[in-house]
Amino acid sequence: MTAHDAEEQSGPRSPRRSGRRPGVQSTREDILSTARKMFAGNGFEMTTVRAIAAAAGVDPALVHHYYGTKRELFVAAVAIPVDPAVVLAPLKEVEVDELGAQLVRTVLGLWDDGEVRPAGLALLRSAVAGPGAGLVRSFLSEIILSHIGARLSGDADEVAVRTGLVASQMLGLIVTRYVVELEPLASMPLADLAECAGPTLQRYLTGPMPVSGS
Amino acid sequence: MTAHDAEEQSGPRSPRRSGRRPGVQSTREDILSTARKMFAGNGFEMTTVRAIAAAAGVDPALVHHYYGTKRELFVAAVAIPVDPAVVLAPLKEVEVDELGAQLVRTVLGLWDDGEVRPAGLALLRSAVAGPGAGLVRSFLSEIILSHIGARLSGDADEVAVRTGLVASQMLGLIVTRYVVELEPLASMPLADLAECAGPTLQRYLTGPMPVSGS
Repeated sequence: MTAHDAEEQSGPRSPRRSGRRPGVQSTREDILSTARKMFAGNGFEMTTVRAIAAAAGVDPALVHHYYGTKRELFVAAVAIPVDPAVVLAPLKEVEVDELGAQLVRTVLGLWDDGEVRPAGLALLRSAVAGPGAGLVRSFLSEIILSHIGARLSGDADEVAVRTGLVASQMLGLIVTRYVVELEPLASMPLADLAECAGPTLQRYLTGPMPVSGS
Repeated sequence: MTAHDAEEQSGPRSPRRSGRRPGVQSTREDILSTARKMFAGNGFEMTTVRAIAAAAGVDPALVHHYYGTKRELFVAAVAIPVDPAVVLAPLKEVEVDELGAQLVRTVLGLWDDGEVRPAGLALLRSAVAGPGAGLVRSFLSEIILSHIGARLSGDADEVAVRTGLVASQMLGLIVTRYVVELEPLASMPLADLAECAGPTLQRYLTGPMPVSGS
């Protein structure tokens, strides 16, 4: 199989028993770790499946075979057990002027329910430790914030400031509630937290903004 | 010396050459690591120098000799190279209704200047990794937020909600600017960032608040 031959030429990336061909599992993991590094370094848009395949020494068709679309590969790379496009769907159902509180309910609702939290914490941990920062930056700006920014008016620079500020408040709520576990925010009902922080997010999204970001 | 005798009874906490008495450095470090664990577990207020000394197997006088007051010991435990009481002094110089923007300028000013940032990142890293979460929680709530909360009106429950929300926005700005390095927030001049986020912090501090926190 071409993929395996090419992969062996690319040198050892993980400990292997000598004299044995790497298995399917190893090839899959090589593709994923290569994708993770390239998405982290160059972002989602600038990274192609073809480039990931070349760097992993496999055929692009094999990447698609294992991971589906580039977007699905990225979701696998960040190791989030849900598809952001699906779980963020509730954000599309509210008017832009109600998006602030809905963001708190939807995003922290995912973290509250416990399925996403371990993966989210692992992602955050890897960002704070250093190596995962680029991946989290790309995930936030190109997957989550682009989704939100598409609903806002204003030029690209202004939208980038607005969504950046949204990211700061959402990340801060996550760190305060799930990492530092600061009371009363750690045990406050989600509806109450949405009432407290919703107007902040709404101002960042649609309120007057003193700085254009350019 | 009593401190050393008592310390040897408490068993090895770090690798030591056998048959040799631990040095001053080792005793100092034992006190500090004991303090770190106890502050993390029980908070600043509930932890006494006497209890730390007992757990470390030394005399309380030795703790004071090495680290000064309980507050100075705590600052050593969180390994921040500045005294929060000194660096947060500018917050006392502004009226409460200008505290929001001043918070951004003062706190992120420290992070910007590079002396505090490595220590802050290390603290954040240890919180996200797990073991340091209690220490960060205690540092935030008992050292930083109590400082801010003392200037606010309202009952204790309401003040706790307000300062918790302030913590969430400040932590979020720190994570966005220095960890994830999301643009344009990562390179935005501090004055601009203070203009954008200041009104949020001001609302959390003194604006109408829908939830009392009790």
